[in-house]
Amino acid sequence: DSKLKIFSLSSNRPLAEEIAANMGVDLGKSTVTTFSDGEVRISIEESVRGYDVFVIQSTSEPVNQHILELLIMIDTLKRASAKTINIVIPYYGYARQDRKARAREPITAKLVADLLQESGASRIISLDLHAPQIQGFFNIPVDQLAGIPILSRYLEEKNLQDVVVVSPDHGSVSRARQLADHLKAPIAIIDKRGPRETEVGESNIVGNIDGKTAILIDDIVDTGTRMTSGTKALIEKGAKEVYACCTHPVLSGIAMEKIENSQLKELIVTNSIPIADEKKLDRITQLSVAPLLSDAITRVYEERSVSPLFD
Amino acid sequence: DSKLKIFSLSSNRPLAEEIAANMGVDLGKSTVTTFSDGEVRISIEESVRGYDVFVIQSTSEPVNQHILELLIMIDTLKRASAKTINIVIPYYGYARQDRKARAREPITAKLVADLLQESGASRIISLDLHAPQIQGFFNIPVDQLAGIPILSRYLEEKNLQDVVVVSPDHGSVSRARQLADHLKAPIAIIDKRGPRETEVGESNIVGNIDGKTAILIDDIVDTGTRMTSGTKALIEKGAKEVYACCTHPVLSGIAMEKIENSQLKELIVTNSIPIADEKKLDRITQLSVAPLLSDAITRVYEERSVSPLFD
Ligand SMILES: Nc1ncnc2c1ncn2[C@@H]1O[C@H](COP(=O)(O)O)[C@@H](O)[C@H]1O
Ligand SMILES: Nc1ncnc2c1ncn2[C@@H]1O[C@H](COP(=O)(O)O)[C@@H](O)[C@H]1O
Repeated sequence: DSKLKIFSLSSNRPLAEEIAANMGVDLGKSTVTTFSDGEVRISIEESVRGYDVFVIQSTSEPVNQHILELLIMIDTLKRASAKTINIVIPYYGYARQDRKARAREPITAKLVADLLQESGASRIISLDLHAPQIQGFFNIPVDQLAGIPILSRYLEEKNLQDVVVVSPDHGSVSRARQLADHLKAPIAIIDKRGPRETEVGESNIVGNIDGKTAILIDDIVDTGTRMTSGTKALIEKGAKEVYACCTHPVLSGIAMEKIENSQLKELIVTNSIPIADEKKLDRITQLSVAPLLSDAITRVYEERSVSPLFD
Repeated sequence: DSKLKIFSLSSNRPLAEEIAANMGVDLGKSTVTTFSDGEVRISIEESVRGYDVFVIQSTSEPVNQHILELLIMIDTLKRASAKTINIVIPYYGYARQDRKARAREPITAKLVADLLQESGASRIISLDLHAPQIQGFFNIPVDQLAGIPILSRYLEEKNLQDVVVVSPDHGSVSRARQLADHLKAPIAIIDKRGPRETEVGESNIVGNIDGKTAILIDDIVDTGTRMTSGTKALIEKGAKEVYACCTHPVLSGIAMEKIENSQLKELIVTNSIPIADEKKLDRITQLSVAPLLSDAITRVYEERSVSPLFD
C-alpha cells in the first residue's frame, strides 16, 4: 500500500488534478479558504502521518497569497507528522529578483527559498527556474525540470520549414541554443542597446532571419512587451513569420491586448500557470506539464533519480 | 550624531509619519511598489550601514502582501548592513491562529514569528498581541505594549456615570478586569453558549448591568458581530447605553454596516490599523498610539527598559 499523498493549493488546481489522474490517485482532501479579513485558513481532512506528501502550488499572481498558502500548508503538514514534505512549484515567483542589481536591494528569490526551507520543506521540484543559480539558494534537494522538450515536440509536429530560433536578448541565448539543438535549426539574437527593461530603441538582429520562420523563446512571458516588440523587429528586418514559446505564461497587465495587436502567429506556453478563461486567445496554445511532473513525483517517491529529466 | 533610522512600509504610513514627527526625525527614504505581476519591489534610498533601524508595519489587510513587504524589507536591510533591525508591528496579523484548535491545523502566528526571525529581525515591538503567549513564539526580544491606558484615559475624560465594564465572552475577562481597574468600575460578562464563532443563540449576562452605562472591551474588532450582538444583548437585558473599545480596528466585511445599524453609542479604537476615509463613521473615535510607540522606540534605541510601558 502506497504511502504517497498529493495535495493541491489554490494556484493551479486543474494541473494538480491532471497530475493526480495521471498517477491514478485522488488528490488529498484539504480546504484552503480565507477569513473575512483575508487571512488564509487551511485544514487537512485526512491523516498524513508517515506519508510522503507532495504539494502542488505555483507562486503566481496573487504571489504573496500563494506563498503564504504554501508556507502555512508546510507548517500544517509538519505538525501533522508527514514523513516528507515535497513542494512541486511549477512556476517559482520572485525568481527575477535573484541578485542585487543595485545597492540596497533585496534578493527575494533567496528569501523565498529560506522561507520554504525554514517552514519545513524536504525537497523542491520546479520547472525552468529563471536562473539555474536559484537551485543553490536551497540546502535541500531541488529537482529542476525543463519545458523545452515539451515545447520543441509541439513545434516539430508543426513541421515548420526554414526555421531560425531567436533569443529576445543577450541573456537568453543559451535557452535559444537548446531549442535550436532540438529543432536542428540555426539561431539569431535580438541585439538591444540600453537596459533590458526599456524595450524601446533600435534593435539589431545578429544572425540571418531573412525570409525565415522565426521562433522566439523565453522562460517567462509577463507583460508581453519583449515578445511583441521582438516580433515587430523581426518582421521589419525580413522574417517571414514569427512564433514565440515560453514555459511560464505570467501574462500580467495588458499582455493579452499587446499579443492580440501584434503580428505574432502563435504563442506556445505550458500550464505551469493557469490562464483564466476570459484571457484565453486562439493564438495561445497551452501544453501540459502534468506528465513531466507526475513522472518526477513518481521518481522522487520511488527514490530514483530524476536526472534523466534534467535540463 | 544619531544612528537611528525609521522606515515605513505601506500598511500604515500616517502612523509612521506621526511617530517620526514625535521623535523629531524624518522617515528614511525607501520605495515600496509592485511589479506588473504583483511582486513586491523594495529599494532603500539612503545608507543604513551601522544604523539601528526601526521599520513600522502592521500586518493588516492585505495581510499576505504586508507580511511579504516586511520580510523583503528585513532582507534588504540585512544585506545593506544595518546594525539592528527592529520591527514595530502595531497590529500583528494571524494572531488568532495561535494554537491547534483541531487536528491538522497550522499555528500560523508561530510560523510568522519564525519567518520574521529567520529573515533577520533583531527585535519586535508590538501592541496588544491577541494572546500574550505569542511573545514566546520568538527567540528575540519582544516588547509588548498595552492599549488599555490610552483607551481608559479617553473614557475617563468622558466622565461617564455608573459604568460597568463588560467582557464580550469568557476568554476576555482579564482584559475587562484591567480596564475596570483603571476606571474603578465593576465588571460583567456576556455568557454565551456554544462555539464562540457562532454569535447566535441565547446570551446570559453575569453581573449587574441594569440601568448602567456598559463598556464592552476586546482586543480586535473584526467583522463587528461580537460587538454588535453584545450591544443588543446588553440593551435587551437593561443596560442604559453601550460603548465599546478595542485596540485594533480590523473592521472587515460589512463591519461598518453592522455598527451603523446597531445601538452602539461609540466605538473607541486606536490607529494601529488605519481606517479608510470612506469607512469612517462619526460613531468611531480613533486614538493615536504614536506617542506610546515613539516612547518605546526611544527606549529601545537608548537601550533602556520598556517595561514601564508593559502590560
Ligand atoms: N516581477 C517582476 N516583473 C518585472 N521585472 C522584474 C520582476 N522582478 C524582477 N524584475 C526585474 O527584472 C530584472 C531581472 O531580469 P533578468 O535580467 O531576466 O534576470 C531586474 O532588473 C529586476 O529588477
Ligand atoms: N482571521 C480570522 N478571522 C476570524 N476568525 C479567526 C481568524 N483567525 C483565526 N480565527 C478563529 O478564531 C478563533 C480563535 O480566536 P480566540 O478564541 O479569540 O483566540 C479560532 O477558532 C480561529 O479559527
